[in-house]
Amino acid sequence: MIRKESLLSFTKEIFLLMGCSERHADEAARILVKADMRGIYSHGVNRLPEYVNLWKNKRVKIHPAIEILREMPATALLDAHKSFGLVSAPYAMRMAIRKAKQSGAAWVSVRNSYHFGIAGYYAMMALEHDMIGIAMTNANPLVAPTHSIQPALGTNPFAIAIPALTEPPFVADMATAPINRGKLDAWAAMNEKVPPGLVQDGNGIDSTDPEILSKKGAIKTLGQDEIHGEHKGYCLSATVDILSAVLSGANFGPLVVPTLQYISQNNTVEDKGIGHLFGAIRIDGFQEAKVFKEYMDQWIQTFKALPAKEGKKVLIPGEPERLKEIEQAQNGIRLPEYVLDKLGKIADEFQIYPDFL
Amino acid sequence: MIRKESLLSFTKEIFLLMGCSERHADEAARILVKADMRGIYSHGVNRLPEYVNLWKNKRVKIHPAIEILREMPATALLDAHKSFGLVSAPYAMRMAIRKAKQSGAAWVSVRNSYHFGIAGYYAMMALEHDMIGIAMTNANPLVAPTHSIQPALGTNPFAIAIPALTEPPFVADMATAPINRGKLDAWAAMNEKVPPGLVQDGNGIDSTDPEILSKKGAIKTLGQDEIHGEHKGYCLSATVDILSAVLSGANFGPLVVPTLQYISQNNTVEDKGIGHLFGAIRIDGFQEAKVFKEYMDQWIQTFKALPAKEGKKVLIPGEPERLKEIEQAQNGIRLPEYVLDKLGKIADEFQIYPDFL
Repeated sequence: MIRKESLLSFTKEIFLLMGCSERHADEAARILVKADMRGIYSHGVNRLPEYVNLWKNKRVKIHPAIEILREMPATALLDAHKSFGLVSAPYAMRMAIRKAKQSGAAWVSVRNSYHFGIAGYYAMMALEHDMIGIAMTNANPLVAPTHSIQPALGTNPFAIAIPALTEPPFVADMATAPINRGKLDAWAAMNEKVPPGLVQDGNGIDSTDPEILSKKGAIKTLGQDEIHGEHKGYCLSATVDILSAVLSGANFGPLVVPTLQYISQNNTVEDKGIGHLFGAIRIDGFQEAKVFKEYMDQWIQTFKALPAKEGKKVLIPGEPERLKEIEQAQNGIRLPEYVLDKLGKIADEFQIYPDFL
Repeated sequence: MIRKESLLSFTKEIFLLMGCSERHADEAARILVKADMRGIYSHGVNRLPEYVNLWKNKRVKIHPAIEILREMPATALLDAHKSFGLVSAPYAMRMAIRKAKQSGAAWVSVRNSYHFGIAGYYAMMALEHDMIGIAMTNANPLVAPTHSIQPALGTNPFAIAIPALTEPPFVADMATAPINRGKLDAWAAMNEKVPPGLVQDGNGIDSTDPEILSKKGAIKTLGQDEIHGEHKGYCLSATVDILSAVLSGANFGPLVVPTLQYISQNNTVEDKGIGHLFGAIRIDGFQEAKVFKEYMDQWIQTFKALPAKEGKKVLIPGEPERLKEIEQAQNGIRLPEYVLDKLGKIADEFQIYPDFL
């Protein structure tokens, strides 16, 4: 069990040692630890080694000067100039919220950025402003479009957070692919096979090998086959790719310069980073916020009361993560072994000794 | 084979005979025939009997006074006052485009409306303005949320249209459920079973009965089971339900007053119709439109060139529908038999005799 404060201060120290400002290091640590608190261990401090690698390989700029390339009352395009996504993303989401205060709604697009952690963190930033928050990003190409034998899309997460009054908010935060690579890593670590219908090999044939991504394989799209709607999963992932990377002018789809060693580099491509898109929608651009939030309570209560299968109940998106966060705030964070191993190596490398290792 | 012009004038005549204005009847016909031209026969003139029923049962108001309940520069809420969705939806999308011209982006929400045909029609309206168009709606409850044994969500379509320069646009237009009820009707008509993983019975057990919806069954969410991401399909359908119906103040989820006879009515519920949401995003709120559209050409060409499985190729969303539209413009529309039967009954009822029946 790790206390939240210990994990926060360790993570913050790493970002400070890479040269980040106090404010950036603090927020980067809070974003990563939020993922762990919510039980999304694949997107928490587990990603620290990747961030450290970006820094060691001089791919990331530590003191970014985020630049506003263009804006209108309800839009803006930012150049993150290769800053950590954990730095550019909260900045962009705050700008979307500020613009939505004036106009009722806004979109802010970011190019030249890197992995930003969980999309849900940014979507949830809108809640306290009585706004709906939206966040998405493209990512390393690991997913094969329908009929493709080559991975060309990221697991491209999409998150939306919608406030309620007395009920906790609705928070959908999901990869648009059926699984992320963290899940494959976990199956590989446990020496287990991948259930059928989730990954394919380099010829597009279904596979159960958890290490298939390092053998020219790919994750399949949500829907898994033609009859069950694989093309819908492709549409979703492609939409997130275009809205994140084409709208911003970042690297899209298969042209993303990977942060994973096993993806073959295309050296002819200019590195414009990955792209993100953040949206904020002011509730009272449509209805009194209180009226909407009461109606949202009714939505949540209606869905929770639906008759369920034996031994199950109908959950509200974000509910399992919220309960996990409450539980781990009381009892401490249970990081998986493979994450603790990574943290140990990072601690050695930076010669710091957190109390939990 | 039916000539497009014949189908348009027949459909328009029906709307005129129901009392619609020349302008509304003309546009309603064009929206429905567009679906047939694109090969989406389930959402074209196939729906005419439902519209006629709404009119006969006095559930629809023919001369609507669409009311603006609230607006900001980038938002508006409209009360459609029970007009056909085919009338309120194009009005709302035009307003979203007009607002986006000023602000860079806008959302327009509609309550008290009915079925609007294909979502893609409205999303595509944005293209000629160098904007990205978005459209969504909630619908009759036919889909069971994850773990639920009761249908509580519509097949809730989502559409997005994104312009390119020399390439045709990217148009994703999809039910967020793996199938729509049109597909079940087709299997029933052909006396075929439903492939496993698409529908469940009233106890939540997988079924292959194409008439299961009239026996308290439900369509499953995209993803089909826990390991393949059924909760992601639930998140998507729920998001469309909330953005369409809670944001607008229409009937949501299981409280939608059905337009299908086999769904049991909840008579205690006030009928606030279904809700829609339309979005428009001005490309040059982010980049020069020409620069973006060239980059979008590159996205499309990159994806079309991906190596594909034996005998297949990677398609761009909207490509099959676009090719179908070109083909049927040349050769005429091949409406399925069950649609022609319905048109015959409508023609008898209104005592008109189109040249194609």
